[in-house]
Amino acid sequence: MRAAPSNPRITVAALERELVALSQFGRPDGGSFDSGVSRVGYSDADVAGRKFAMDLMRQAGASVRIDAAGNIFASRAGSDPKLRPLLFGSHIDSVPNGGNFDGDLGSLSSIQVLRVLKDAGITTRRPLTVVIWACEEASFSGWSLNGSRTAAGKSEAKELQVVSRGLTKADSIRKIGGDPARIDDARIPRDAFHAYVELHIEQGGTLAREKVPVGVVDGIVSIDQYEVTVRGFANHAGTTPMAERQDALVAAARLTLAVRETATAESGAQVGTVGHLEVIPNASNVVPGEVRMNVEFRDLSSAKLDRMGETLRAKSRSIGAEANVQIEMRRLERHDAALAAVEVQRAIESAAGALRLDTRHLPSGAGHDAQMMATLMPMGMIFVPSIGGISHSPKERTAWQDCANGANVLLETVLALTN
Amino acid sequence: MRAAPSNPRITVAALERELVALSQFGRPDGGSFDSGVSRVGYSDADVAGRKFAMDLMRQAGASVRIDAAGNIFASRAGSDPKLRPLLFGSHIDSVPNGGNFDGDLGSLSSIQVLRVLKDAGITTRRPLTVVIWACEEASFSGWSLNGSRTAAGKSEAKELQVVSRGLTKADSIRKIGGDPARIDDARIPRDAFHAYVELHIEQGGTLAREKVPVGVVDGIVSIDQYEVTVRGFANHAGTTPMAERQDALVAAARLTLAVRETATAESGAQVGTVGHLEVIPNASNVVPGEVRMNVEFRDLSSAKLDRMGETLRAKSRSIGAEANVQIEMRRLERHDAALAAVEVQRAIESAAGALRLDTRHLPSGAGHDAQMMATLMPMGMIFVPSIGGISHSPKERTAWQDCANGANVLLETVLALTN
Repeated sequence: MRAAPSNPRITVAALERELVALSQFGRPDGGSFDSGVSRVGYSDADVAGRKFAMDLMRQAGASVRIDAAGNIFASRAGSDPKLRPLLFGSHIDSVPNGGNFDGDLGSLSSIQVLRVLKDAGITTRRPLTVVIWACEEASFSGWSLNGSRTAAGKSEAKELQVVSRGLTKADSIRKIGGDPARIDDARIPRDAFHAYVELHIEQGGTLAREKVPVGVVDGIVSIDQYEVTVRGFANHAGTTPMAERQDALVAAARLTLAVRETATAESGAQVGTVGHLEVIPNASNVVPGEVRMNVEFRDLSSAKLDRMGETLRAKSRSIGAEANVQIEMRRLERHDAALAAVEVQRAIESAAGALRLDTRHLPSGAGHDAQMMATLMPMGMIFVPSIGGISHSPKERTAWQDCANGANVLLETVLALTN
Repeated sequence: MRAAPSNPRITVAALERELVALSQFGRPDGGSFDSGVSRVGYSDADVAGRKFAMDLMRQAGASVRIDAAGNIFASRAGSDPKLRPLLFGSHIDSVPNGGNFDGDLGSLSSIQVLRVLKDAGITTRRPLTVVIWACEEASFSGWSLNGSRTAAGKSEAKELQVVSRGLTKADSIRKIGGDPARIDDARIPRDAFHAYVELHIEQGGTLAREKVPVGVVDGIVSIDQYEVTVRGFANHAGTTPMAERQDALVAAARLTLAVRETATAESGAQVGTVGHLEVIPNASNVVPGEVRMNVEFRDLSSAKLDRMGETLRAKSRSIGAEANVQIEMRRLERHDAALAAVEVQRAIESAAGALRLDTRHLPSGAGHDAQMMATLMPMGMIFVPSIGGISHSPKERTAWQDCANGANVLLETVLALTN
């Protein structure tokens, strides 16, 4: 399973050492690597982790800059300066109480690519640029992909004024070295880079279950999010006969089951979730008067998303009529599906083949910075197995050998796309 | 419909004047009587309302004292001091954002009984005692019937240390003039009073729907409360296939519907409610890992409550198995049903008959201080219609004529039971 000794390789030992070192920024007090991490974007831990990553970039011989949105770019010259550079990287911020692989693996592997090329004395034809995107995870009232979205020109000016954890987004960007006054300078022109590649843990259980070490991502699913408000009538739970209730939670329960029924009605990888649900007034002795809930559907096909939304709307009307409540469904902005470019997918397959690693194609059910880059340039993603499919949890794990396999597939893909 | 002019009567005008005057203590800023009231037990507004009520008691010629639990007693001598006094009254504390009739009507009507007897120069054979119970509504982590429960010897010493709104219960009792160090002095001996009568709004819609002005309460229902924890597994809502989810909210939704099915499976007035439900982590992009919810069933029959609890346990086992989650149901202490004494029910019926007011028997689905008194002495309750069955809301209303009818039924019942 080892490639020819002449080729540069990223070792298990180097990746493990650096992932463990990064894990200390945002580690719970008294915890270990196994305790997970809370390195929320723009936090003090994020600032410390970013400094650690920038030091690694400089040690790998790259020149480092921070753009106006706080994204970190590490550049390495190529032998042909007329060629557009290849962009690859990921993020190092985490969800609160998250794991040490989501984003970190792709970021540190990308820096390792620069490092092993330096140590082997290899200069690629194209210049190489490693990026660590600012605040990939949802922050600021649910806004996610913050750095890459700005780079793709899809941020809104009003976002800069939103406050999270006591700071406006503008002040948060300033805190990590960005410049909100020049935020438009962070936009990446369409012809700036040759392609974008990102290595990431799968975060689902498909590769682990099928014992396939490398996933070639077909695309990143589209997400339809709905804000649903169920309005019944709050009343005394002891004195209101069952027949006269306008119980918002009973209707919300029916709608929750309808979401699952809708998502499982046809074959395919689509998913439907009610993750957030809030009861008002939420007292044990009061018939619930109102429920606010979020529904989301994900799939690569917009047509299927439309169909699921229509089905749920129809079900919500009959549930509302039966339960004598008002149900209001409002669709938030759709995140369009981002398809991976065929040429990048082929480069990943060839790289895995050269390393004698099996591959399988799969969609990404999670959002990634790569979906923003797909609006600007050919994009591809490499997935490695998540043990048990667990992510956004301290229990998130990828076997060290799988980490190194993914890093070396990234390395070979970079070499293939730059020569 | 008017009784003979020689009998003392409580007027609509007097009741309305006093209910409106009391409503100012705890009224929302800039609001009116229609804005409802937040006169939470032991609050500054409660202290002010209690002073107002004690002034009315003194104006009605009664001698006033506060017991160790903070309950207010107003005594009026009878012609035969050897006879045990008759006890009647209610409470004046409210839920947050509640209405101006729940408790207030019975309290102010009881004081009016003393007032009109004084004005008419009537001395009853038995002494009369009007009581305003301390903090009837749930406070201190859900403890309710605070004053009457202590009077019935059913409080626990540990309750005094529970903190709510920044004060221990001991300090709260001190604040309203009680003495927590002598809390046991508040216990009422079994032979202290002849009987207890309480006038209250129905809080349900039965009397209003059937256009019956006076309800004769058969008893106060028993309440079974369950704390339910559903444990699934939190995971990424985009990457976790539908078939592999252990979605705690999907299971909780099934259980919520099972509660309703269980309560409506047999005929009768029983009710079942999920009023409180909390999702963990409650993020729109995370499959819910845990749900904590409260289930309650109410009925006059303990056997029916047992049956509903067993049915729900069986359903929770099959729901848990199907959804691949753990469901734990823990029953909290049962509030036993309190039956009204037949002789007090008959006195209420006769009183209504003398006033040519129709009556109907019904259970009370809500808890009342009267259920605590039922453990010590014969108890009865008079209900008047709640418009639309609305209570615990600023929209809680009872027509003024219905208020006065109830007050006069109370007056006639008191006269019948004391002569």
